Amino acid sequence: MTPSRTVEELRELRELTGNEDGAQRVAWTDTWAQAREWLSGKLAGIPGIDEETDEAGNQWFTLRGASERTLLIGGHIDSVPNGGWLDGCLNVMAGVEVLRRIAEDGEPALTVRLVNWADEEGARFGRSLFGSSAAAGSMSDQDELRQRRDADGVTLPDAIAAHGVDLDRALDAQKQLENAVAYLELHIEQGPVLEAMDLPLGVVLGTFGVERHQVTWHGQAAHAGSTPMDKRRDALAGAAKLALEIRPIAAQVGAGAVCTSGGVVTKPGIVTSVVETAEQLLDQRHLDAGSLAELLRLAKEASERFAKEEDLEVEWERIWSIEPILFDAELIELADESIREVADTSHRLPSGPLHDAAEVARAGIPTVMLFVQSLRGLSHTKLEDTKPEHLELAVEALDRLTQKVLERARPE
Amino acid sequence: MTPSRTVEELRELRELTGNEDGAQRVAWTDTWAQAREWLSGKLAGIPGIDEETDEAGNQWFTLRGASERTLLIGGHIDSVPNGGWLDGCLNVMAGVEVLRRIAEDGEPALTVRLVNWADEEGARFGRSLFGSSAAAGSMSDQDELRQRRDADGVTLPDAIAAHGVDLDRALDAQKQLENAVAYLELHIEQGPVLEAMDLPLGVVLGTFGVERHQVTWHGQAAHAGSTPMDKRRDALAGAAKLALEIRPIAAQVGAGAVCTSGGVVTKPGIVTSVVETAEQLLDQRHLDAGSLAELLRLAKEASERFAKEEDLEVEWERIWSIEPILFDAELIELADESIREVADTSHRLPSGPLHDAAEVARAGIPTVMLFVQSLRGLSHTKLEDTKPEHLELAVEALDRLTQKVLERARPE
Repeated sequence: MTPSRTVEELRELRELTGNEDGAQRVAWTDTWAQAREWLSGKLAGIPGIDEETDEAGNQWFTLRGASERTLLIGGHIDSVPNGGWLDGCLNVMAGVEVLRRIAEDGEPALTVRLVNWADEEGARFGRSLFGSSAAAGSMSDQDELRQRRDADGVTLPDAIAAHGVDLDRALDAQKQLENAVAYLELHIEQGPVLEAMDLPLGVVLGTFGVERHQVTWHGQAAHAGSTPMDKRRDALAGAAKLALEIRPIAAQVGAGAVCTSGGVVTKPGIVTSVVETAEQLLDQRHLDAGSLAELLRLAKEASERFAKEEDLEVEWERIWSIEPILFDAELIELADESIREVADTSHRLPSGPLHDAAEVARAGIPTVMLFVQSLRGLSHTKLEDTKPEHLELAVEALDRLTQKVLERARPE
Repeated sequence: MTPSRTVEELRELRELTGNEDGAQRVAWTDTWAQAREWLSGKLAGIPGIDEETDEAGNQWFTLRGASERTLLIGGHIDSVPNGGWLDGCLNVMAGVEVLRRIAEDGEPALTVRLVNWADEEGARFGRSLFGSSAAAGSMSDQDELRQRRDADGVTLPDAIAAHGVDLDRALDAQKQLENAVAYLELHIEQGPVLEAMDLPLGVVLGTFGVERHQVTWHGQAAHAGSTPMDKRRDALAGAAKLALEIRPIAAQVGAGAVCTSGGVVTKPGIVTSVVETAEQLLDQRHLDAGSLAELLRLAKEASERFAKEEDLEVEWERIWSIEPILFDAELIELADESIREVADTSHRLPSGPLHDAAEVARAGIPTVMLFVQSLRGLSHTKLEDTKPEHLELAVEALDRLTQKVLERARPE
């Protein structure tokens, strides 16, 4: 195990596939294909590794073990445009280093596979978790995907066909998960929690459930000069009250609740008129389904109260929602141990962003993720960074965790 | 005096120059020119009336009196696109009826002139009060106006030249005000105050001073899922607090203060991100200059407090401001008497919107306005309306007021 090699290889990948604006490995582009080929080259050097690409474009590297039962390690080499040097590819390159170590140690108890998921980011067609949702069998939007076009008007089916993927057959990738008994993924945190606690590593408990709504407030446009204050029905007042109220609501429900009003659009939106309509975006997240429902209930209740106070109408429209996805309790314990062995202290935290791991967990495969500290919580920008010493600790922790899972699988 | 004739003529004008979307008398268009010609025709029937058009395109109708000193009655026949049937042209047509009465009564003590101001609305080039500001000598933006284009790319100088106006000579219209001793204008209220008080008519005390600012809040974009509530710098929180706080501030300063946050633009404005930047429009108005300054001071003070509470930066940029313009105390008394004679009860109120009268008052000419009730406070829409019986009372009140001014001028 040479964790510093992972850092070197990530820098090499950055040189190869980035520019002064950051990483450019957008899925289904030439740069992405170049990165995948580079990855093949890295793994070709490990004796006994077989490579295949499945029907959804996921790239699989397999090291046969004593059993057909399989331990999976995953990540994604695709990036957003002008992305960071770690998001997704740290996962893959740490997996490469772990595979090297396992291959050196002789036949493992389980078959071990590294998967480079296709199009986690959805940057080109707005459809994230493409490859992992196909493998998990949860991709149910093929009809809609057939219509999607990128900014240049190229359809999704045409773009993926250029990389050998047939949308009609993508779900055949499900067979890849058949023998899987565990899925491990290392990722940068993309948030400020570990940095604030001065900890390099944490265990992820699962991904948040999300309730995403547009809340529309209807008042009455009125002249800013001729309408006395007590004669107004100001839609912005409703949106402003709710934007502030979601914070005490999050505190009341507690334990990691996050609520965000990500934007308000005001109409007519001119300086001389009271706001007639305010369209407010609301995103609420919690790891516990009951608490998530409570966040939503309290926000709706507050909005009705504000509508009454301000003589407005308020409408709620769900944009999207997903249930919380919990990771495997036993794997969480093993991950916690692994982190404590390499960094003394561990911390358990939920993941706000979704990850390929969530798709795998939804498919019923015991899953866990490790987070490594992100500097300033930044990602999806070239400013994304993590200290090299923390990256090395992360590779070590993933390796320990892999060892523990393999040891557990060894016949007593 | 036949006030019902004014209502009939307004309906005739609506048929001639409106369509199913409302009035279409946008200044410097053929429909506007057609309305002006129609107006000439109406006045040509009054014996002794002279017509001229000044260098700014204002249309003047003069009835010589015993003195060269002049009483002015004004309005504007131009409308916004899809406008109402009363805004501006009620003023003019009521003036026509008053001129008819004066002409019948024989030589008045003062010369009486009706002015149809050119382009009060500024609908085509975004420059309101064009003709009145030229006559008042306060038009100081000719250089900027030379560059203005309408939505079709036609320049302002070309558009007005098509109607015989040379921008370089517009200020020569100033000589029109040389002998003026009083300026009277009747207008629909464009607000809900008189309707709420169940009063047909009110005297306008002056036009509000206005402070108009863009308040920009700077926070930090952060992932809605991975950023705990206590690690956020949410620019929307600053804007929301200020949008709510301007209301108690208005109540504290009191006496007719109005404050409006007419819009907020949030960036990045997506559901998955804490708001990094919120650009907030703020409009504050008061009839008293000291109170207006106090409104602004309190809002700035509050914004600094909110910026500290929310760990944001806040910047203020003045978009526009104007001092309060007070109407003439003696004319206000006469107007009050006139209203009480025709409608029992009067009410004194400020004007939120600006009017041509404000330009004339700024030029030092004693000025007053009468407001007639607007149904539901609506204007600049085809829904704009006033009860016919209120329109008739308004014409009578303007006539009484004109009589009183002329009587006052008669040598004892």
